[in-house]
Amino acid sequence: MPAGPRSRAGRRLARARSLASLRKALARLRARGERVAFVPTMGALHEGHLSLVRLARRSAERVVVSVFVNPLQFGPREDYRRYPRPLARDRALLAAERVDLVWEPGVEDVYPPGDCTRVSVDGLSEVLEGASRPGHYTGVCTVVARLLNAVQPDVLWLGQKDAQQALVLERMCRDLLLPVAVCRGPTVREEDGLALSSRNAYLSHAERQQAVALSQGLAAAWILLKEGERSAARLAAAIRREWDGYPLVREDYIAIVHPETLAPLQQVRGPALVAVAAHVGPARLIDNFPWRGR
Amino acid sequence: MPAGPRSRAGRRLARARSLASLRKALARLRARGERVAFVPTMGALHEGHLSLVRLARRSAERVVVSVFVNPLQFGPREDYRRYPRPLARDRALLAAERVDLVWEPGVEDVYPPGDCTRVSVDGLSEVLEGASRPGHYTGVCTVVARLLNAVQPDVLWLGQKDAQQALVLERMCRDLLLPVAVCRGPTVREEDGLALSSRNAYLSHAERQQAVALSQGLAAAWILLKEGERSAARLAAAIRREWDGYPLVREDYIAIVHPETLAPLQQVRGPALVAVAAHVGPARLIDNFPWRGR
Repeated sequence: MPAGPRSRAGRRLARARSLASLRKALARLRARGERVAFVPTMGALHEGHLSLVRLARRSAERVVVSVFVNPLQFGPREDYRRYPRPLARDRALLAAERVDLVWEPGVEDVYPPGDCTRVSVDGLSEVLEGASRPGHYTGVCTVVARLLNAVQPDVLWLGQKDAQQALVLERMCRDLLLPVAVCRGPTVREEDGLALSSRNAYLSHAERQQAVALSQGLAAAWILLKEGERSAARLAAAIRREWDGYPLVREDYIAIVHPETLAPLQQVRGPALVAVAAHVGPARLIDNFPWRGR
Repeated sequence: MPAGPRSRAGRRLARARSLASLRKALARLRARGERVAFVPTMGALHEGHLSLVRLARRSAERVVVSVFVNPLQFGPREDYRRYPRPLARDRALLAAERVDLVWEPGVEDVYPPGDCTRVSVDGLSEVLEGASRPGHYTGVCTVVARLLNAVQPDVLWLGQKDAQQALVLERMCRDLLLPVAVCRGPTVREEDGLALSSRNAYLSHAERQQAVALSQGLAAAWILLKEGERSAARLAAAIRREWDGYPLVREDYIAIVHPETLAPLQQVRGPALVAVAAHVGPARLIDNFPWRGR
């Protein structure tokens, strides 16, 4: 394992690339029976990721983070190539958080030559993000199953920002009998409400200003729910009305769905997930809030 | 964990049914860092299974066997319901082999309510057995991934009798970065050459006598290969000629394929897998031999 960069505090970051070096480093970390919490990321880290690292730290003695831009979860016309990869900055941030180990596999470490194995969660994967991004969740499940088998963590931390992803992966871990507890950390936002996302970096100044439409639409729906509105159509209409003021925002979907099945709701009679996706300039952004049911 | 039956030697067999009881028993088995070898079975045990148990015993300090007739790998018109389930006999055989732990999950222990996760190995799963049994290997991979996540063995033992299954599962373990060594045990045969199979129990006396056609056809091909024959068509023809003497044997396939890709060979220039499948009365039987290349 190569010596890593030091944070401002001079702390060295332990890093692994190959599966063999990862397993060796993990055996050392676990030598005294310590529990491991794991935060899988695609790098381009922001406060959302770092909040998960801090939650992970409180859930286990050791924190392992992976940084891997997974080609399998990008569609052929999506942003795999231009996805930001600020590796030195990511390492410095993780060193400052005193992460115990960073796994930075190459594509060939996760997808051996001739790879032909896929993991899918049927039913939850074809709607919302899955409808707009065919094959996306098979890519997500396939990579996370591998990361989990490599790291074998006690706790897996996922962000509520990607609510459908968290649900799909919770289901995968449960169904595959993986011995890992899956936890969600809340969405972290900019001061104006925009959910943090590595893809916010794609936005021009004007687009960035209009991207606030997503969280403002959700806030409008939340206020209506609080006031007693139960019609999914009227909640969606309220979000759409909010977006009308932002011409750079192009709706992909506005969905009010059951939080476990993702089935569309007509009326919000209990818990619900209110989820939106929109194109803002070159970026496709998503946001959501869980409604606990009054 | 309930007290199990005793073998003739009076040995008690440790058994688990629920995932929780399995994990508790495994933690005890591994308390002193012992390695675990695992033999997954569908029960109806014969000397083929028991030979794997003995190989497993030599490969690790602890041997765990699962007995689970996996509904997901049976087609709708296949023999899931009538598949033999001689549980008391299986337990006695495993007790006599001094197996450390038997896992006998119920369907709901392996497939939680609402289960929707599938594991597939594309490319290897659609040919030979997969062509005759659509969805079979997705069922096999999905269950074995779960069994492996539950048992977390160091070594997995599979039989050469199901050569394609072994290949598919070896690929799955490699691709999913599962930390397990996969080993194959050789096919065990009756005196007349018939490969042991739980499905041999379906055969009438007359069918049982004719079932020898499979191994006799393979023996004919093996002799020709030894003599220098390299034409896959002529090898298949020799097997078919052999089968002509057995009117109760209906060919499903005779295949001479690459042992890693399962691609059909025209000429046998290196290693090959010679695999056959046939219906004999109510049973569908398979057999094969690996040709190492001269």
